[in-house]
Amino acid sequence: MELALIGLGKMGSGMSRRLLKQGFRVAGYDVNPGAVAALEPEGLRPLKAIQEVRTTLTAPRIVWLMLPAGTVTEEAVQTLGEVLEAGDLVVDGGNAFYKDSMRRAAWLEARGIQFADVGVSGGVWGERHGYGLMMGATAAAAARLEPILKALAPAPDKGWVHVGPVGAGHFAKMVHNGIEYALMQAYAEGFEILRQKKEFRIDLARLAEAWRHGTVIRSWLLDLTAAALAEDQDLEGVAPYVPDSGEGRWTVQEAVDLGVPVPTISGALWERFASQQEARYAYKLLAVMRRAFGGHAVKRNEG
Amino acid sequence: MELALIGLGKMGSGMSRRLLKQGFRVAGYDVNPGAVAALEPEGLRPLKAIQEVRTTLTAPRIVWLMLPAGTVTEEAVQTLGEVLEAGDLVVDGGNAFYKDSMRRAAWLEARGIQFADVGVSGGVWGERHGYGLMMGATAAAAARLEPILKALAPAPDKGWVHVGPVGAGHFAKMVHNGIEYALMQAYAEGFEILRQKKEFRIDLARLAEAWRHGTVIRSWLLDLTAAALAEDQDLEGVAPYVPDSGEGRWTVQEAVDLGVPVPTISGALWERFASQQEARYAYKLLAVMRRAFGGHAVKRNEG
Amino acid sequence: MELALIGLGKMGSGMSRRLLKQGFRVAGYDVNPGAVAALEPEGLRPLKAIQEVRTTLTAPRIVWLMLPAGTVTEEAVQTLGEVLEAGDLVVDGGNAFYKDSMRRAAWLEARGIQFADVGVSGGVWGERHGYGLMMGATAAAAARLEPILKALAPAPDKGWVHVGPVGAGHFAKMVHNGIEYALMQAYAEGFEILRQKKEFRIDLARLAEAWRHGTVIRSWLLDLTAAALAEDQDLEGVAPYVPDSGEGRWTVQEAVDLGVPVPTISGALWERFASQQEARYAYKLLAVMRRAFGGHAVKRNEG
Amino acid sequence: MELALIGLGKMGSGMSRRLLKQGFRVAGYDVNPGAVAALEPEGLRPLKAIQEVRTTLTAPRIVWLMLPAGTVTEEAVQTLGEVLEAGDLVVDGGNAFYKDSMRRAAWLEARGIQFADVGVSGGVWGERHGYGLMMGATAAAAARLEPILKALAPAPDKGWVHVGPVGAGHFAKMVHNGIEYALMQAYAEGFEILRQKKEFRIDLARLAEAWRHGTVIRSWLLDLTAAALAEDQDLEGVAPYVPDSGEGRWTVQEAVDLGVPVPTISGALWERFASQQEARYAYKLLAVMRRAFGGHAVKRNEG
Repeated sequence: MELALIGLGKMGSGMSRRLLKQGFRVAGYDVNPGAVAALEPEGLRPLKAIQEVRTTLTAPRIVWLMLPAGTVTEEAVQTLGEVLEAGDLVVDGGNAFYKDSMRRAAWLEARGIQFADVGVSGGVWGERHGYGLMMGATAAAAARLEPILKALAPAPDKGWVHVGPVGAGHFAKMVHNGIEYALMQAYAEGFEILRQKKEFRIDLARLAEAWRHGTVIRSWLLDLTAAALAEDQDLEGVAPYVPDSGEGRWTVQEAVDLGVPVPTISGALWERFASQQEARYAYKLLAVMRRAFGGHAVKRNEG
Repeated sequence: MELALIGLGKMGSGMSRRLLKQGFRVAGYDVNPGAVAALEPEGLRPLKAIQEVRTTLTAPRIVWLMLPAGTVTEEAVQTLGEVLEAGDLVVDGGNAFYKDSMRRAAWLEARGIQFADVGVSGGVWGERHGYGLMMGATAAAAARLEPILKALAPAPDKGWVHVGPVGAGHFAKMVHNGIEYALMQAYAEGFEILRQKKEFRIDLARLAEAWRHGTVIRSWLLDLTAAALAEDQDLEGVAPYVPDSGEGRWTVQEAVDLGVPVPTISGALWERFASQQEARYAYKLLAVMRRAFGGHAVKRNEG
Repeated sequence: MELALIGLGKMGSGMSRRLLKQGFRVAGYDVNPGAVAALEPEGLRPLKAIQEVRTTLTAPRIVWLMLPAGTVTEEAVQTLGEVLEAGDLVVDGGNAFYKDSMRRAAWLEARGIQFADVGVSGGVWGERHGYGLMMGATAAAAARLEPILKALAPAPDKGWVHVGPVGAGHFAKMVHNGIEYALMQAYAEGFEILRQKKEFRIDLARLAEAWRHGTVIRSWLLDLTAAALAEDQDLEGVAPYVPDSGEGRWTVQEAVDLGVPVPTISGALWERFASQQEARYAYKLLAVMRRAFGGHAVKRNEG
Repeated sequence: MELALIGLGKMGSGMSRRLLKQGFRVAGYDVNPGAVAALEPEGLRPLKAIQEVRTTLTAPRIVWLMLPAGTVTEEAVQTLGEVLEAGDLVVDGGNAFYKDSMRRAAWLEARGIQFADVGVSGGVWGERHGYGLMMGATAAAAARLEPILKALAPAPDKGWVHVGPVGAGHFAKMVHNGIEYALMQAYAEGFEILRQKKEFRIDLARLAEAWRHGTVIRSWLLDLTAAALAEDQDLEGVAPYVPDSGEGRWTVQEAVDLGVPVPTISGALWERFASQQEARYAYKLLAVMRRAFGGHAVKRNEG
């Protein structure tokens, strides 16, 4: 079976390798030629431009995007809409907003091109352990993609699901990431409490390792956390800065649209926002308010 | 090796069986004689009263409590303080507040009796899979308990940890449960969003099952959730009522004492509180405030 | 000075009266003829349709909308875009989303028609005490509207502000309402704590009344709350149901877009959402999870 | 009427002046002799030690404490318990935890000494405008204190209330401050959103000033905020650091005890905690978790 993978970053390259190892013929493109070249020894057919999918693959084609959400994905879809033929199938495996995916599907469909949105989870570990995959697609497109999903997933019958129509895949992945934010924050709060309880001098690495077995809170995130703490539990060189990608934000905004209370998912998002700001205006204003009514001194910035 | 288990409920009976199967001599007491009788065929030596630990066990004794936190545990410790001899060791495996454990340890120590607090996680699954165990104890007490922990844990070298001095075990278990509250709430929020997105008609059971493999959010709680959803994802007969035990509350109160922000753990706790109230005063008052400034009609109670 | 008011509900009728009393010539329209008729004795010139603004007012006209946000406002703007002439000025005093206002302004501007968005606060009390007004408009439009704002405001130099360009008025009003949600929730939480502290048998009405004077938390919302509690502090007939309008939701979504942590505003919104649902799926799922790991009984729905 | 004021800081000195101006005979003590000396020209009778209340005042005496909660108040009560006579009355006007006040009342009562807890709000403005006062006391003690409360309050019939038995005054003040935290945070969030919306270049000082009149969110805190913003809305020299005193913490802990959800009060408290920490461990751990599963680079600390 044949497909092209557009975008050979951390996720795309791992997926290429997993597919190549299972006998898929994979053509690949990346804006960075080095990423393409690195996979050639493993059997990847190199593409010099997205447009080459037309000549390199045999129709009906499958082109799977693993690109940053937003402009990059938008432009790739535009290009494919012009290059591909009716009957071809575009898959967006990136983290696009599900409404964008629905719009792109409609635009491609008007050209006779199929579209599927497949949320892909698993990070850098997916290549070895298999990826979690959530697909939004018509029944026809889903049937075509099934062999690929079975190969990418941890096992042919595990870890992939046809969630619903186009859009549902990225919707499910968005919620997955929203949950992920809150799970991470939950552990982070717990470990901060333990660390602040200085009188007990708790070895967080040993505790996290023990928690991995037999407890109610065991999880893959805890496995990773335990490994990280085992390496360094003081984290002195690490900046207290937590980026956020689109999905946590979208999850909260969708929850608002749907009228669903999401205290932990939003709580986790606010914490990330807070970590990203060095001198929060809200805090300054609170300090000034306290001074105004109580005469409390305000701490001044140094320098 | 020999010990007595006081309290043979869901946790205590499972632990008894796990220990008996591994060749421990276990004496057992429960306020409910049926719970004792049920374990006799499996080798449990029955106790008719807590006081019998004195005559049934050989000194130095180990008496392990698996009782509800609060009065019941308090009274049992009092009784043991009077019945046991110097050199005996009392273990509280229940969910006591760690400061109570520290107080009890000091009281027993004045009588020459050792004390250890061991948080036990794993629920009804622990008997088969092993329990997660977090011990607070002196080095001497810890050494005495090690064989028991190794037997109760999923494997001799996994799932148990000597966290620190007396109190540290229950402290770690408290934080474990605080994290647990937030993890559960995270999943609950995610699944509620998915369910409210009616247009996608997402099969939550299939999605949860797929999420168990390869995704970042896989966990034991997700395993259980997937199983529960597979059985019934509409949950129509289930009342929207979530009890809380002490540990979620204590975790938030400790976080306050330590100055640690816990938005997800507290968010999860507030949700449980909210689920427990049928006619929240705060909501009524908000409705009345809206009427007061905006002339908005207030919904009236029926009947 | 002359203007037309479209929409004579609680807000629009109060504003009409306030303007009529100060000598403005006000034409008025409402989908409900009774609302128009009720104001005729006070000097309102009745309009039978929005289109009549063209013939009733002298150019350049000012037409002020006080309509529900969404479709109703959209259609009114469409109508005015077709009916009005270059140089006329449309004001939206409703609670539209600021991006809709910006879009409408651009659409009208293409027809030579000016647009201003004016957030109006004060509820049913504004007629007597004056309204708080936040205007988004060009300098030219702002200058034209100044006399009206001065008349609607509590005093000519108080309670109105030209916030910025088109959109800024509704943006400021949106944030105002977001703050309002959190303020209301803050009081509601406090009073619920006081009420739950049953041993002190606190008279909430007397306490709220005392708090109105001299304390740090005195406010207009507290004035209203005290009045409501004085009337009935048990609120037995009041359903625990709190509606939400668009602005609380938009504020949270904007905060997400801007990367601003809003724990209290979002917390207040989640509470309103929670109040609106009778049998939350999230709670049911949490109950089922607890059963799954701990064997805890689940409360069943009655009937 | 005669009383002694112990503690002549910002609050105590303002109260002394307000009482002296209304003809009360006030004796005063402060650990800082300068604070006593400053009030002598206004009529304060200076005390060189707390013990002098015995000889300076005529029995039955009233001694009003305005001291920092905790050890300082505890020691003063101890001293007074030894110095005073049956029939004397000790008032704690500071911000003590209500359970401490109940304990102290019981201890004093055993010596025949009365006790009342009076929460005092109003900050540095109280001297001029009057204080908000919440009293917990027996009917007898309340009757004795009534003239003093009437003098301290904004008006004899406004701003003071006998909330309930001993403890109820400090309980009400605690909740008052919890509400205050959330109100402040609500405004801070709103203003931060406005400020981040850079395209509108909103003048926060002018907007805050306008909001003071006619809007639903007008309040005394907003008055102060507007004044502060008028002086400096960039707040560049202000450190983003917000202290917290005991009451916000106690309010959350009490809410936990009472099972009352307090998302906004706790949200405000977590924000203050977060502002107090320079390099939050939770954020570092989140950054490390992201690296662990996604290979995301971690920002390093500089230097």
